[in-house]
Amino acid sequence: RKSLTIGLIPADGIGKEVIPAARTAIEALGSDIPTPKFVDLIAGFETFTRTGVALPEETVEVLKNDCDCALFGSVSSPSRKVVGYSSPIVALRKILDLYANIRPVVSVSPSPDEPSKVDMIVVRENTECLYVKQEQQTFGEHGKEARATRLITERASTRIGKMAFELALARPRRHLTVIHKSNVLSVTDGLFRESVRAVQTKDPRFEAVTVAEQLVDSAVYRLFREPQIYDVMVAPNLYGDILSDAAAALVGSLGVVPSVNAGDTFVMGEPVHGSAPDIFGQGIANPVASIRSAALMLRHLGYTEAAHRIDNAVDSVLREGQLLTPDLGGTAKTQEYHISLQKNS
Amino acid sequence: RKSLTIGLIPADGIGKEVIPAARTAIEALGSDIPTPKFVDLIAGFETFTRTGVALPEETVEVLKNDCDCALFGSVSSPSRKVVGYSSPIVALRKILDLYANIRPVVSVSPSPDEPSKVDMIVVRENTECLYVKQEQQTFGEHGKEARATRLITERASTRIGKMAFELALARPRRHLTVIHKSNVLSVTDGLFRESVRAVQTKDPRFEAVTVAEQLVDSAVYRLFREPQIYDVMVAPNLYGDILSDAAAALVGSLGVVPSVNAGDTFVMGEPVHGSAPDIFGQGIANPVASIRSAALMLRHLGYTEAAHRIDNAVDSVLREGQLLTPDLGGTAKTQEYHISLQKNS
Ligand SMILES: CC(C)[C@H](C(=O)O)[C@@H](O)C(=O)O
Ligand SMILES: CC(C)[C@H](C(=O)O)[C@@H](O)C(=O)O
Repeated sequence: RKSLTIGLIPADGIGKEVIPAARTAIEALGSDIPTPKFVDLIAGFETFTRTGVALPEETVEVLKNDCDCALFGSVSSPSRKVVGYSSPIVALRKILDLYANIRPVVSVSPSPDEPSKVDMIVVRENTECLYVKQEQQTFGEHGKEARATRLITERASTRIGKMAFELALARPRRHLTVIHKSNVLSVTDGLFRESVRAVQTKDPRFEAVTVAEQLVDSAVYRLFREPQIYDVMVAPNLYGDILSDAAAALVGSLGVVPSVNAGDTFVMGEPVHGSAPDIFGQGIANPVASIRSAALMLRHLGYTEAAHRIDNAVDSVLREGQLLTPDLGGTAKTQEYHISLQKNS
Repeated sequence: RKSLTIGLIPADGIGKEVIPAARTAIEALGSDIPTPKFVDLIAGFETFTRTGVALPEETVEVLKNDCDCALFGSVSSPSRKVVGYSSPIVALRKILDLYANIRPVVSVSPSPDEPSKVDMIVVRENTECLYVKQEQQTFGEHGKEARATRLITERASTRIGKMAFELALARPRRHLTVIHKSNVLSVTDGLFRESVRAVQTKDPRFEAVTVAEQLVDSAVYRLFREPQIYDVMVAPNLYGDILSDAAAALVGSLGVVPSVNAGDTFVMGEPVHGSAPDIFGQGIANPVASIRSAALMLRHLGYTEAAHRIDNAVDSVLREGQLLTPDLGGTAKTQEYHISLQKNS
């Protein structure tokens, strides 16, 4: 690769404030990566309000045909049902077959030599479960009745299981926790659990990984009581959504938790936080989640050194404690990160 | 009522250790309530292993025909799929139409005059959502495919909404948070949200309640960051399951969080914790959740004073800090609670 084409989809709210900081972080890398080329793309509720479409076809086409990877910001949800609107991020994950949502939740230790107190990865299946959005409403004897389908397939559970085992294998502890609720959902979550566990029996390398299981309710409880029991967690889509937000509370703020949506041929970074309409426009959004999402994306593409450089820079900034946005108890502005990133390049 | 017939279903694991403590607490009330009569009933995984049925018909018949109320312990889940086994607690909630699962999560303040730091009620819909257990497995092009139905009805959402508004109205803050994920599940969670909100427009008393909404993922996150924003929460079944376990982490232990499963004609107390196979048999299970569940059950039946007496006794015991089981950092045994309850009667 001579250049790296990166689609930027800030979408709604603070997504528009933090994605530029991620861009600056990538630009500051210089020759560590092929020359980055950024392509600005639109999607989101604002796009829907303006154009009637939340995810324009052009955005999808450019991502598919012209981009090597992408960064997504955050989307706003309408507070009332809006006919025709459907979440563009859920759609993108499906259209681009980004089947794994990888969410590392890591606290910054006081010094580089100390291990992080919280250090786990939530590996979330990203294409099915209740996110298939097959819903109907009918009228029954007692009024409206609505039904949604929760889909769990052997294929998707197996591939997310593989991804989780690979990630666990590459970590010092080599421990994987399978999250499910098969005491109630014996068929769907039963299939998820069995498919993930079967992955281990089919690849001798994975024998080195210890495997545990947790019901999702008690998993969230134990996450707060004993976060150290977790290393890599693998979960169906909705449980993964909830678990990763819960885990974010352990590291001070959702504003520092990154993710990538990864498939076999494409990767899209995305901060775990939402569009935060309450603080949008004030310039105080924490860009760390987006900056780290850029690092994760680069790591996934094989630019390990570049990713490392970004993460190290963020770690020092957080350790120094000078550049903390209000979510972390400081008064720093998003803009100050740009200056700091440019200086350190 | 001259007497109060109470069905006791300890079921599995530590349920068998803690339900007797709840019984002792009720017996210690003396003339505050009609003479209690206890009926021992069986259910659970152990019952299934022994008899082939997890919830014997006799248990259901006795509850329906002879009991005024009941206390349920906890059930074990098989670690692998077991043909024919299905959770008896999920079944009981449905059969007895105990549509509301009311879970107060309250911390004990250092002195009786100080307010509790954490003081909220999770009101969980108890009969539908994914708990309808309509699941099928088929074979597709890429292997096994499993589907579950998530059912949300206007009727069930309305009645749980009413229950939640009534509970909120009776509390000083009068605040209700509706939990949903309608940014993904616009039809099912859309119906839940609209049905709950419609409750307010139909009863002028409920105008006094302020209403907020939270997406379930961010609700769990904020629960840990700002628990004080919550007063009463109302949620579909699965979100309520996860949220109440999460909230339990805020008050030190799942071992202190009680619940009632309430319908229009029957109420069944139940500790929120599980059967805890890891500590079963050691006599160290925390009986507080079960004792408080007995209090909640009595309160629901109108025996406010009796409920108050139990809760006050538990509060003082926890405040003194002499009788703490290992989950709360102490070395007390379940048995010591019996002695303490008998002494205080
Ligand atoms: C915005 C929403 C559809 C999304 C999700 O539920 O996946 C978000 O919560 C996330 O975690 O990325
Ligand atoms: C045992 C299980 C079926 C149950 C549930 O999911 O409802 C439990 O977790 C609870 O919260 O009472």
